[in-house]
Amino acid sequence: MEPRQRITQKTIELFIHNGIRQVTMDQIAEETGMSKRTIYEMFKDKDSLVWECLETMNRKHMQEVQDILADASNVIEALYKFGLHGEKKKSEINRLFFEDLRKLYPHFWETLKKGAQPGSGSFSCRILEKGIEEGIFLKDINVEVVDAFFYVIMETFHKKDIFPQNITHQELIRNIIVPYFRGISTEKGKKLIEEYENR
Amino acid sequence: MEPRQRITQKTIELFIHNGIRQVTMDQIAEETGMSKRTIYEMFKDKDSLVWECLETMNRKHMQEVQDILADASNVIEALYKFGLHGEKKKSEINRLFFEDLRKLYPHFWETLKKGAQPGSGSFSCRILEKGIEEGIFLKDINVEVVDAFFYVIMETFHKKDIFPQNITHQELIRNIIVPYFRGISTEKGKKLIEEYENR
Repeated sequence: MEPRQRITQKTIELFIHNGIRQVTMDQIAEETGMSKRTIYEMFKDKDSLVWECLETMNRKHMQEVQDILADASNVIEALYKFGLHGEKKKSEINRLFFEDLRKLYPHFWETLKKGAQPGSGSFSCRILEKGIEEGIFLKDINVEVVDAFFYVIMETFHKKDIFPQNITHQELIRNIIVPYFRGISTEKGKKLIEEYENR
Repeated sequence: MEPRQRITQKTIELFIHNGIRQVTMDQIAEETGMSKRTIYEMFKDKDSLVWECLETMNRKHMQEVQDILADASNVIEALYKFGLHGEKKKSEINRLFFEDLRKLYPHFWETLKKGAQPGSGSFSCRILEKGIEEGIFLKDINVEVVDAFFYVIMETFHKKDIFPQNITHQELIRNIIVPYFRGISTEKGKKLIEEYENR
């Protein structure tokens, strides 16, 4: 592995386990067995390293969801697997990581979010189009509107204060995402949703 | 009509036609045929008068939607009538009214919005519960979650920048509200939605 890549990989691991703030350049040097000087030759400061780590994580994530979509036998299966994959990843990452990201690197956070925004040609639009081709989503839906609205739903999930206290993620999915997808689905789609819901 | 009520009624008319900012106390005096002094005896300033007008409009609106619900033969009919009623009212009010409200009286605007917020016992929760009783909405929905989410949908409709440009209100309803309601409805409910959609 190239030194640059080795540093990024190791730093990502440290971030995932400890959040971003607590991880020092000294610690990174120690863990990679490299001198701080060598690291600073490649990354001018911690911020540059953080940004490269975030970009790497993001690229990896996009590759993973694309692989899930390619391997799934239909888009409903893919959507369920995205959900499970997301939950698993979230459970593996120290929540300090997300807190630090929002508090200390709001600009990075906004840039990453922007990249995942809806719109023609986006990954989520492609999923909807694939679903229509597979006869799962209704032909007459406006893909861009549904896509934008799905983005609103995802944003809503982070604003838990509008929902009753102690509501579970599962209960939100059952009352928000599942009904909406049922509503844009054909009979074939609705049957698949029921199948996956009962698993 | 009591003088206080006469002032409020006339001022509401003026606000509806001209927005709030442009309407002066002189104009109100002229239109009501009362002296400014008399008006100031009842309302210490324009802000107090604005607030009383907003409260009156709000009370009237709540009475109207309650009447619609009472007269409707089922909740789906009521929901469609709410939509039509809202559209009609909006078309009758000068859009300066809403702009002035947001810009000049953000505190009033927030208070009014707060009163319409979701939660157990709210008007919208009662509609959902009535729908369940009527066999129109699925028994196993979590009324509070659906209610809160419906509030999110309504908020979303005002943030048109996230949707494709020039999208019509109709197209948003067809792709967002209708599918979601279909998704929380029983077979009976879905049939009713189809019936009203085809009208």
